[in-house]
Amino acid sequence: MAVYTDVSDEELADFIASYRVGALTSCKGIAEGVENSNYLVHTEAGRYILTLYEKRVARADLPYFLALMEHLAARGITCPVPVHDRQGRTLRELAGRPAALVTFLDGVSVRRPNIGQCALLGEGLARFHLAGETFPMQRANSLSLSGWVPLFAAIGSGADQIIPGLGAEIERELGHLTQHWPADLPQGVIHADLFPDNVFFLGPRLSGLIDFYFACNDMLAYDIAVCLNAWCFETDASFNVTKARALLQAYKGVRALSPSELDAMPTLARGAALRFLLTRTYDRLNIDEGALVKPKDPSEYLRKLRFHRRVKSYRDYGLGED
Amino acid sequence: MAVYTDVSDEELADFIASYRVGALTSCKGIAEGVENSNYLVHTEAGRYILTLYEKRVARADLPYFLALMEHLAARGITCPVPVHDRQGRTLRELAGRPAALVTFLDGVSVRRPNIGQCALLGEGLARFHLAGETFPMQRANSLSLSGWVPLFAAIGSGADQIIPGLGAEIERELGHLTQHWPADLPQGVIHADLFPDNVFFLGPRLSGLIDFYFACNDMLAYDIAVCLNAWCFETDASFNVTKARALLQAYKGVRALSPSELDAMPTLARGAALRFLLTRTYDRLNIDEGALVKPKDPSEYLRKLRFHRRVKSYRDYGLGED
Repeated sequence: MAVYTDVSDEELADFIASYRVGALTSCKGIAEGVENSNYLVHTEAGRYILTLYEKRVARADLPYFLALMEHLAARGITCPVPVHDRQGRTLRELAGRPAALVTFLDGVSVRRPNIGQCALLGEGLARFHLAGETFPMQRANSLSLSGWVPLFAAIGSGADQIIPGLGAEIERELGHLTQHWPADLPQGVIHADLFPDNVFFLGPRLSGLIDFYFACNDMLAYDIAVCLNAWCFETDASFNVTKARALLQAYKGVRALSPSELDAMPTLARGAALRFLLTRTYDRLNIDEGALVKPKDPSEYLRKLRFHRRVKSYRDYGLGED
Repeated sequence: MAVYTDVSDEELADFIASYRVGALTSCKGIAEGVENSNYLVHTEAGRYILTLYEKRVARADLPYFLALMEHLAARGITCPVPVHDRQGRTLRELAGRPAALVTFLDGVSVRRPNIGQCALLGEGLARFHLAGETFPMQRANSLSLSGWVPLFAAIGSGADQIIPGLGAEIERELGHLTQHWPADLPQGVIHADLFPDNVFFLGPRLSGLIDFYFACNDMLAYDIAVCLNAWCFETDASFNVTKARALLQAYKGVRALSPSELDAMPTLARGAALRFLLTRTYDRLNIDEGALVKPKDPSEYLRKLRFHRRVKSYRDYGLGED
């Protein structure tokens, strides 16, 4: 949860008045998003989310994220849409931070997705990948293999403070992934952080995707691997192959997966697990004094990484009978 | 800001279904209230605040608070109204906590109230006092003089860790207030915590009062003294007598202040300043590991206390010419 930046009443009123959304009627800081400050704003015209981008989001990347949301929404993906101010701008400044006003999405995120929700996610992810095909901007994935090496260097001996032996295990894993990381898979816009808290449901349907602030251009199948990690493990660390099968089958129903994408899935899943193991370890070692969020547990992703290391082929993710 | 208790999707859906408010469409933890967990809930029927009462609120006091809100709302005070569930109950349980669903209030709280807002507050406070006259329930003020002594004992030598000499200064003040605390002033229901963040404005009008979880029966003039402290000092610790005059004049326009209430005002203001000095000092010394809120600065209220100690009569609060 996070509201890092306070906005004064006058600043807020002036800011809202610069949009064509009527007068402000309410503004509540909300406990959502780790990286930014978010406010749920009611005006005479409706509901909006006001986001102030904090230091972990690079200002230079914001045009990519905002344009992507507009691009996706125009192609039928339900996601927050940046509102244009009276001058036509979507990227603004407020309280010394880059800021944007986006439309509010109905829906509720689920903590423990069920099989049906995993299928809806798979379908939604594939639709998102197709909608992104024509997005013209580019942003490299700073948290892929080339980013993990310096991140691991920054963690250094701290890894073993978190979990004894973790440093050596990460080093071996990085060695393996450097040798086996795929290079020729289909690329496109990926969400890269599509955890259950970034997906909204309304009754029996997926009602929207949020939080595009890790989106980038990378292998589409890597996005699936992130979701296998985030959606298909139970809280006791067991892998729910039925959920994985539901996710992958639903994905395939919208966008076909090539044999090389399937073959690479265990490697991509190891990489995705390593990515969150590394960032969580780093965050645990570098707790911001001003942070209002408890750092997440790195060991959860170490267990997931070890699971994928034992996987023999994509068939272990539930696609065996196909 | 605070969301101390997480509610699972299933629990939340079941809880909302037990009210006649339609299906849940959105639920966001909000950064409001220090004592409790608050969610801004949208349903098919409208907007609500869901509050989970955390340990600092005594369960036995909740019927008083909830009944007070219903009583006030029925008498024209705009405040959150507890929603009755299908069985007619307002006090419920959710995620192992006492919980209530209340109506949502439009409006924005101001960080630095202007003179006009101080006048609106004075008028609103007097209307609230009149509306409370017929409220039949009783709750003692646990944070008045009789509560300050054990609170100071619990702080002990810790006071001087916060501010050198603070212990002796509090002790002298407690001695003075014990001798001079008024006993025969008009009593009634007081809010007891009517800081600017608990008062909403919409354009040129006061749109509502919230957070009745310190409400109790005590001297009405003490509630004014709390507001003089919370609304009429500038951030540089200077006392804005124009704001105080606006607040008091507007209050008097609705509910007359007796000569003894006016004479007692400097003493009540010292007491009100001491109350927040004590609780802030205690909170600073007893930072909860799980707290998501930074403890407020005690020295702000030490400066306010010292100001009121120099005050000669209520005329120093801007009522001189009357």
